[in-house]
Amino acid sequence: MTLQGTLLIGQQAVTGSQAEIFAINPATGEALAPTYHGGSRAEVEQACQLAEAAFDHYRETSLETRAHFLETIAEEIEAIGAELTERGVAETGLPQARLEGERGRTCGQLRLFASVVRAGEWLDIRLDPALPERQPLPRADLRQRHIPLGPVAVFGASNFPLAFSVAGGDTASALAAGCPVVVKGHSAHPGTSELVGSAIQRAVAKCGLPEGVFSLLFGSGKEIGQALVADPRIKAVGFTGSRSGGTALMATAQARPEPIPVYAEMSSINPVFLLPEALNARGSKIAEGFVASLNMGAGQFCTNPGLVIGLKGPDLDAFVATAGEAVKASAAQTMLTPGIHTAYQSGVAALSGSPHVKEIARGQTNNAPHGCQTGLFVASANDFLTDEALQSEVFGATSLVIECRDSDEMQRVADQLEGQLTATLQLDDGDLAAAKRLLSILERRAGRILANGWPTGVEVCHAMVHGGPYPATSDARTTSVGSAAIYRFLRPVCYQDLPAGLLPEALRDDNPFNIARLVDGKREG
Amino acid sequence: MTLQGTLLIGQQAVTGSQAEIFAINPATGEALAPTYHGGSRAEVEQACQLAEAAFDHYRETSLETRAHFLETIAEEIEAIGAELTERGVAETGLPQARLEGERGRTCGQLRLFASVVRAGEWLDIRLDPALPERQPLPRADLRQRHIPLGPVAVFGASNFPLAFSVAGGDTASALAAGCPVVVKGHSAHPGTSELVGSAIQRAVAKCGLPEGVFSLLFGSGKEIGQALVADPRIKAVGFTGSRSGGTALMATAQARPEPIPVYAEMSSINPVFLLPEALNARGSKIAEGFVASLNMGAGQFCTNPGLVIGLKGPDLDAFVATAGEAVKASAAQTMLTPGIHTAYQSGVAALSGSPHVKEIARGQTNNAPHGCQTGLFVASANDFLTDEALQSEVFGATSLVIECRDSDEMQRVADQLEGQLTATLQLDDGDLAAAKRLLSILERRAGRILANGWPTGVEVCHAMVHGGPYPATSDARTTSVGSAAIYRFLRPVCYQDLPAGLLPEALRDDNPFNIARLVDGKREG
Repeated sequence: MTLQGTLLIGQQAVTGSQAEIFAINPATGEALAPTYHGGSRAEVEQACQLAEAAFDHYRETSLETRAHFLETIAEEIEAIGAELTERGVAETGLPQARLEGERGRTCGQLRLFASVVRAGEWLDIRLDPALPERQPLPRADLRQRHIPLGPVAVFGASNFPLAFSVAGGDTASALAAGCPVVVKGHSAHPGTSELVGSAIQRAVAKCGLPEGVFSLLFGSGKEIGQALVADPRIKAVGFTGSRSGGTALMATAQARPEPIPVYAEMSSINPVFLLPEALNARGSKIAEGFVASLNMGAGQFCTNPGLVIGLKGPDLDAFVATAGEAVKASAAQTMLTPGIHTAYQSGVAALSGSPHVKEIARGQTNNAPHGCQTGLFVASANDFLTDEALQSEVFGATSLVIECRDSDEMQRVADQLEGQLTATLQLDDGDLAAAKRLLSILERRAGRILANGWPTGVEVCHAMVHGGPYPATSDARTTSVGSAAIYRFLRPVCYQDLPAGLLPEALRDDNPFNIARLVDGKREG
Repeated sequence: MTLQGTLLIGQQAVTGSQAEIFAINPATGEALAPTYHGGSRAEVEQACQLAEAAFDHYRETSLETRAHFLETIAEEIEAIGAELTERGVAETGLPQARLEGERGRTCGQLRLFASVVRAGEWLDIRLDPALPERQPLPRADLRQRHIPLGPVAVFGASNFPLAFSVAGGDTASALAAGCPVVVKGHSAHPGTSELVGSAIQRAVAKCGLPEGVFSLLFGSGKEIGQALVADPRIKAVGFTGSRSGGTALMATAQARPEPIPVYAEMSSINPVFLLPEALNARGSKIAEGFVASLNMGAGQFCTNPGLVIGLKGPDLDAFVATAGEAVKASAAQTMLTPGIHTAYQSGVAALSGSPHVKEIARGQTNNAPHGCQTGLFVASANDFLTDEALQSEVFGATSLVIECRDSDEMQRVADQLEGQLTATLQLDDGDLAAAKRLLSILERRAGRILANGWPTGVEVCHAMVHGGPYPATSDARTTSVGSAAIYRFLRPVCYQDLPAGLLPEALRDDNPFNIARLVDGKREG
């Protein structure tokens, strides 16, 4: 299709009236056509009004209709073909294979949510039948289901132009829950966003749904993004991005006359603990795995291993030496945007300039613009424990090794960590006791704990938790990846003594949709 | 037992160092011995430190140990005997039968949570087994459970000295989830609080749990309460009280370096819609039920019916006349505290003084201090829609009838309601179509929808939702009554490829605790 350079408001394509937005190919520095224009408050208003108008119809669509809609979005995205991945490559500098994989993940995610919608467990149906004879007081007939919160604002992320963007996990889970979605597309990949947004538009039309189920805006986060979160019709927010961006949205959401939940996935340095036996037995293998994980996607993953903790000594020295060699051999990869590249450079410069930090190795440079030069640094645990700045995320392929005097100090480092998306233990059988002590600390600080693996690579499944205590996210009670993400956009409603003619169908005695439910506290189905 | 007039910090009884607190018998105005002294920041510090120290042990107690602990609390409360209800009556002015009923509810609630803990569904166990052969990438072994958030601050409510206080729903659900609890007892009933607090202390000791599992503080909400919510070891807050109190805690919780969830149950006027057929067929019976509900507990219920909406005309006039007669015949009941009585008087005065409001009837007065004179007022829908002040909660037995020109205007009134705990429909068969339209509006504004009943009386069961959109509560995604309240204090953690020796027991392949779980997306057990 020909890109229009427009916002998508319901079924309309609307040319923005505000500042120009154009994608830059970070591998070449060239601007990509077409030029987009940011939306104004008028378009925010229009998108929210359509979303509100669509909500009551959309939230009462049948499970099958909604599941089919999610599958239709996946089909429409696949039907775009190579244009999507080519545009994605041009706008992000990511390799073709990565975009293809991400498309598969995105469509798989939509289909997973379709299956979740059909199963209906997310309705959390609970029936407590009336007990008219109970003494001293009878019990009324009480039935509970979950209903969607209302229209949801989703912010596309820079680093996953498909999987965490216009039709990414936030959008898929909100639509699955029955919430219309207004996306603020990331300005770094407007073409990719428009292609995917058009696919959703087509799916809305094909499924005969009200047009307000989906809109796509472009524009400044500070203006359009904030206006969207402040709009009274928006009832929840999904965001993946920086800590400053996420906390700004949290503040706006809390300052509304009616505060709303914000699910912001922000910053994480994903500590990796090297336990002594494992380090001794297979330090160089771990070092290779580490640097491979560090370099994935030029380090532009929320789950990039930015901190490695080990006991000072010959085994850690050997690990650092091997990792340093691998870092030196690392080719520079193009970063997503000039801005991200600049921020990476200054983050690395801040580490380099710290009196507490020693440079171990830097990777290759190349002459292309915006290449990420991998970095490996080292600091003592003692300095880490006293210098908060060493916990700052450097978004990109740079990691800091922390040398601990003993296992007590290693525990203290664990104890002082901010909230994280992940924490990893590299351990062998002999490390089990130490690992157990660390586990009980790390559980309180991370959403996912890994053993002998690497945190990059987040499976989309039922057991996944892509979340964690603040500042990893704004709400540790949830996950933004995996089927449980649907629960973010729901709230319970109880119906007391409703006559059959008024009761929502899913709550009827005869369980017409055959959904698992809790009857008088007992699980059925 | 002899009341000590102390704070309870872990297993210690500690005399506070701050301003005097003493209960006043609102029926007589007399001060009740002993005198309590508010705690200082030092006691907040000590209670939080003990709670933090207890957490790791307590959260990994077996399901049976924790369930038995909750049951032991119930037994210890019952073992106090008549002293508890007598002190409760003296401190609150509520009748003996009400205190006895509330004790039954409180102990029943603890036992319900014991059964919930044993069933273990709240762990939300999810297993996605490894798929080592999967193409293009293998899947790791991924397992999820929920873990408790950490120590929880609970604020006792004035209006339920047992069921929403020291061992009330917030405490029971937080302890069930595995969170130590620090209670800030309500200053209106310190003796009742100390009695119940001592019962929990004894249960902690009998069950061999770390003392920090429970502490009870007294003191100023603005000082001790705020200090508690600001303490970095506190990870969630349960509160039932006023809108100003709740929003102040929300602001503190959001301003922390690590923001935490606040579950504040605040204000609600619990609209009752009188649909035309029902009003015509049984208006006077509805009027009697309405005034009985209005007068329950001197109207000091979160779910008191403070707003009644009907179509202007002879049927509504007849309803108002009957209700007015019942109001005039209503005896004055003693209110909980002098402060609540004063606030009630000024709330009623504000209504009386409004140019938009007409007084229909006032109840009896009596000569005792702090008697609640029931009140019934009327206003037009048109005025209600333009005068925000008419939505303000008057805490006590006063209600406002809204006269609508037609059913469209009735819908507009529904549409403009703030978030509510409940909404009630009085309907007959012929009202079904109108009720359906209202239901889809009211679902978005309330946590519980009732037909042909009264909102006072909140069943403690599995399907109950005592919650609702802001400002009814600070978090519409939850309930503070019923078994689902446990989910407020939990967060998910995913374990990836953990060796068997490190894996939490509940996640083992052989399901040693026989808990229902989701395996590869399929429900088992």
